[in-house]
Amino acid sequence: MKNNMLQVLVHHPDIAFAEVEVEYPGVKLTKVNKTDSPNYLFLDLLFSAEAKPGNIALTFSPPKGKKVKVDYPLLARSKPAKEYIGFNSSDAIYLITPDRFANANSANDQVKGLLEQEVDRSHDYKRHGGDIEGITSNLDYIKELGFTAVWPSPLLTNDMKQGSYHGYAITDYYQVDPRFGTLDEYKMLAAESSAKGMKLIMDQVANHCGLEHWWMKDLPFKDWVNFQKRFEAGKQPMYSNHRRTTNQDLYASKVDAKGMNEGWFVETMPDLNQRNPFLAKYIIQNSIWWIETLELGGIRQDTYPYPDKKFMANWAGAIMTEYPNFSIVGEEWSYNPLLISYWQKNSPVGGDYQSNLPSTMDFAMQSNIIKGIKEPESWNEGLVHLYEGLANDFAYAYPQKIMAFLDNHDKSRVFTEFDGDVANTKMALSYLLVLPRIPQIYYGTEIMMDDFDKPGDHGLIRTDFPGGWQGDTVSAFTGNGLSPEQKDMQAYLRKILNYRKSSKALQEGKTIHFAPVEGVYVLVRSNGEEKVIHIINKNETAYDLNLNRFEELMLSGKQLKNIITGDVTTWGDTMKLNKKGSTVLTTKL
Amino acid sequence: MKNNMLQVLVHHPDIAFAEVEVEYPGVKLTKVNKTDSPNYLFLDLLFSAEAKPGNIALTFSPPKGKKVKVDYPLLARSKPAKEYIGFNSSDAIYLITPDRFANANSANDQVKGLLEQEVDRSHDYKRHGGDIEGITSNLDYIKELGFTAVWPSPLLTNDMKQGSYHGYAITDYYQVDPRFGTLDEYKMLAAESSAKGMKLIMDQVANHCGLEHWWMKDLPFKDWVNFQKRFEAGKQPMYSNHRRTTNQDLYASKVDAKGMNEGWFVETMPDLNQRNPFLAKYIIQNSIWWIETLELGGIRQDTYPYPDKKFMANWAGAIMTEYPNFSIVGEEWSYNPLLISYWQKNSPVGGDYQSNLPSTMDFAMQSNIIKGIKEPESWNEGLVHLYEGLANDFAYAYPQKIMAFLDNHDKSRVFTEFDGDVANTKMALSYLLVLPRIPQIYYGTEIMMDDFDKPGDHGLIRTDFPGGWQGDTVSAFTGNGLSPEQKDMQAYLRKILNYRKSSKALQEGKTIHFAPVEGVYVLVRSNGEEKVIHIINKNETAYDLNLNRFEELMLSGKQLKNIITGDVTTWGDTMKLNKKGSTVLTTKL
Repeated sequence: MKNNMLQVLVHHPDIAFAEVEVEYPGVKLTKVNKTDSPNYLFLDLLFSAEAKPGNIALTFSPPKGKKVKVDYPLLARSKPAKEYIGFNSSDAIYLITPDRFANANSANDQVKGLLEQEVDRSHDYKRHGGDIEGITSNLDYIKELGFTAVWPSPLLTNDMKQGSYHGYAITDYYQVDPRFGTLDEYKMLAAESSAKGMKLIMDQVANHCGLEHWWMKDLPFKDWVNFQKRFEAGKQPMYSNHRRTTNQDLYASKVDAKGMNEGWFVETMPDLNQRNPFLAKYIIQNSIWWIETLELGGIRQDTYPYPDKKFMANWAGAIMTEYPNFSIVGEEWSYNPLLISYWQKNSPVGGDYQSNLPSTMDFAMQSNIIKGIKEPESWNEGLVHLYEGLANDFAYAYPQKIMAFLDNHDKSRVFTEFDGDVANTKMALSYLLVLPRIPQIYYGTEIMMDDFDKPGDHGLIRTDFPGGWQGDTVSAFTGNGLSPEQKDMQAYLRKILNYRKSSKALQEGKTIHFAPVEGVYVLVRSNGEEKVIHIINKNETAYDLNLNRFEELMLSGKQLKNIITGDVTTWGDTMKLNKKGSTVLTTKL
Repeated sequence: MKNNMLQVLVHHPDIAFAEVEVEYPGVKLTKVNKTDSPNYLFLDLLFSAEAKPGNIALTFSPPKGKKVKVDYPLLARSKPAKEYIGFNSSDAIYLITPDRFANANSANDQVKGLLEQEVDRSHDYKRHGGDIEGITSNLDYIKELGFTAVWPSPLLTNDMKQGSYHGYAITDYYQVDPRFGTLDEYKMLAAESSAKGMKLIMDQVANHCGLEHWWMKDLPFKDWVNFQKRFEAGKQPMYSNHRRTTNQDLYASKVDAKGMNEGWFVETMPDLNQRNPFLAKYIIQNSIWWIETLELGGIRQDTYPYPDKKFMANWAGAIMTEYPNFSIVGEEWSYNPLLISYWQKNSPVGGDYQSNLPSTMDFAMQSNIIKGIKEPESWNEGLVHLYEGLANDFAYAYPQKIMAFLDNHDKSRVFTEFDGDVANTKMALSYLLVLPRIPQIYYGTEIMMDDFDKPGDHGLIRTDFPGGWQGDTVSAFTGNGLSPEQKDMQAYLRKILNYRKSSKALQEGKTIHFAPVEGVYVLVRSNGEEKVIHIINKNETAYDLNLNRFEELMLSGKQLKNIITGDVTTWGDTMKLNKKGSTVLTTKL
């Protein structure tokens, strides 16, 4: 590793009173750090080039009683750091809520000793039994749809009393939730994904842990979590004010900035104090450990604007220094392009702040696509939101490295946003997939899953994927019981995604677009001879598009293939567009 | 001048066939430029240090006939370039539509020989007779209100068939519209303003002229205006597509970019081609001529994103090079902070484009203030628009140099936007005046002029100022006939503006604001010992504000004066706020 220091957390009653020795060639114990609790030690180890894989012997000698020897395994690296290639604009990402995707192993649905025991598929906020094996065993389905990366929401232990299915209340940063599977199963998911040419993205949470995290019963420092005194006094937590703009605001008051970054996200999620250098190292080392252990193809970091932002820059910097071709996307839920820009590495609006973060999330684009397609057309409404939204790319350091999406596990499903309008959903999806972005699609979008019953309800958004459970009468995996419309949507996505998979134009091509006129919006991606022409016609009727306006594309007389239908046409003076929908044409016949 | 070149346009039948000689110490004719018309010459003159004020003799020798000698006056400069101090955040600007402010000289209401003869005060789109003298004679009124700068919309000749009252269809760039007055009267306005400590801002238009401009009958070049061929063929003009984002859009098609910048604004306004180097010089020299002639305190440039943007950068650069302390504000009517940022000098999002423009217009803030004050409060609506809007300042190179306003001659009046709500209007005005900006207020706001009859109608927005016409029964100047509410609004503005006039805290102080809570939003400006605390209470009832949250202001125990009421209070644990309204407090007793 470029960083040859390691800090090991040791947790044991009265361990602070023990003498510590480390005997291993190439490994030196440079410092033994005590904490505010007698039950912790943080050991600083320095590694030299002589250190070879093996078990590092740590010997603890308490003042009374026997010495204790603990083996700390030093593992060989499985591949060079440069070969960790993170997700990028050549990828299309499939986002999964693991508890709700597929239950391959019903034996792990209920695990003794954990606080939440209930499994109840009829209840949107209880565990449904989905697991890692459920994802692994369906990788072929995902691959054939045309995805090249999988992002499951967090799989680490959430030993919480309730509502733990979503995974964002981690109670052990080094343990796979046994209801999702084992570390070996997680490794198998990684290996199988890799074997199928897909990147595995890990969802990590640096801002908060779950209230039932083991360290909450014996906190190593007085400042391990924010507003720790209130917690220790048994008071209600100080909540975050969620005023995320305090991170950028030149005029933010100190009290608001502190309230934003140090307040707790919710009552059940203690806010970690990343300004404590031991906690900071813990989180950074944990991320790196997972990258090595799973040979990750990327990290998605939760609630990016909430932790200490200097720490987040150090965290991302530490990872990207070790793995220069890796990728990380941070979640800032903002519709303001300025904030989307701010968090990305080398942002023009970053000022003194260098985030080191490769990718951010394009909530602005998500909103523009939904609004723009739904709204009736006028001079300043409708498709112009897509057009002008994309025109904001000049404010981004690397627009192509930004993640775009129509929905996710926190947002109403796109089909619901469009009130069940299939044509609108298709237009939005095809547009998403031709953008100069990294597209992300939420599981179930391919069969138009919805949350009509309670729009926006998190539990319902994350509903069970049909076919994932034994006895399901409908299966999206096999197609059994799907409606013709659902099958059509699967085929539609499959065609565009699989075209995208080998299209340099869509992955990294130049972009040109033409301002919407009369409900028709044309966007073109091109790379050398390959040109992809994406046309949205929002009119309820067929439309004759005059092609003279597009002279600069130099397509006159060229043959073009429709990616969806396979039909080949010649670019002439006009083109007949079918009513309401996208046309995706390529010069690659 | 730093630029010692001058280009003189000569217009005369068959002048192109004449020989030209220039005899004057220190002045050299370096080039005689011919054009596509035989009736023009552009003479390049080079000035050395020896050139002293006097009349430069230009001698024209036609092939047949007599020599003609023309005196071109070379004037002494009235003050050093560095002393041209442009409007800045120490100023408050009063915007006037001259035809509608005050008619001091009814003799110039109708001027023979001009195309539009009608004067009709009952018609919103016809001339009403207001003039330059009407402004000059009321400068004391404006000064006493507390303004330090006056911006009249264009006063140059608009010899158009109709709708010429607004001044934006200029038909001679060197002539004052005789219906507004004479050049001497314009100079008098400048001198009187200066004597009263007020800056005079000139409204200029580089994008288009009026269709009746004299050169439209004999265009010097084939590319003097855009789409000139269509014009010469008598066809309907190609209109601008008004897709202003093509100026920034990385992906804009060429056809759209051309359509934006080269299309005509409206049928009666030919779009000038600033890529023609002679036209470019003409516009630049014209601006500089007016700066010197009127000793201007700033320029407002119309429709900034419409002309060729490289030209606009050269234009602003040429002016700012000559007058380093001058100021120019460009009008980009966009609610997108990215565009507001883009046009300002040294913009972080400017990319390769360096605009050289000191100031832009904050349409985003205008919209946020109206929306934020009008909307009912919730977590993400209401005052949070003001708070988060101001938080975008990190994207601006110089937020304090941006012009802020609640309305202008193109927008519905603020009192109408607030549906006649006086308290809302007052809150908006006081907030505007404490912002780190250059505030601009439209004439008549101080007496709550409105456009209720046809909201947004330009003619009605620019309605007559009472007291400006002989026989007016109501006069805002004297107070005669004003309602108590109107007088109260005048007094309210007068108090804040006059405080602002000598307040370093408001003019250039540090800003801190506190996220709105329960309908209360606190913003503080401070400079050394002077602190100004601006509190908006949007609640319909009185509110007890807990002051503990504002500890970082270190105001505890301090005495504070209410700028409006004069009352002095002590900053304690709580403060009782009156129902709905602003409280403006200062530590300056």
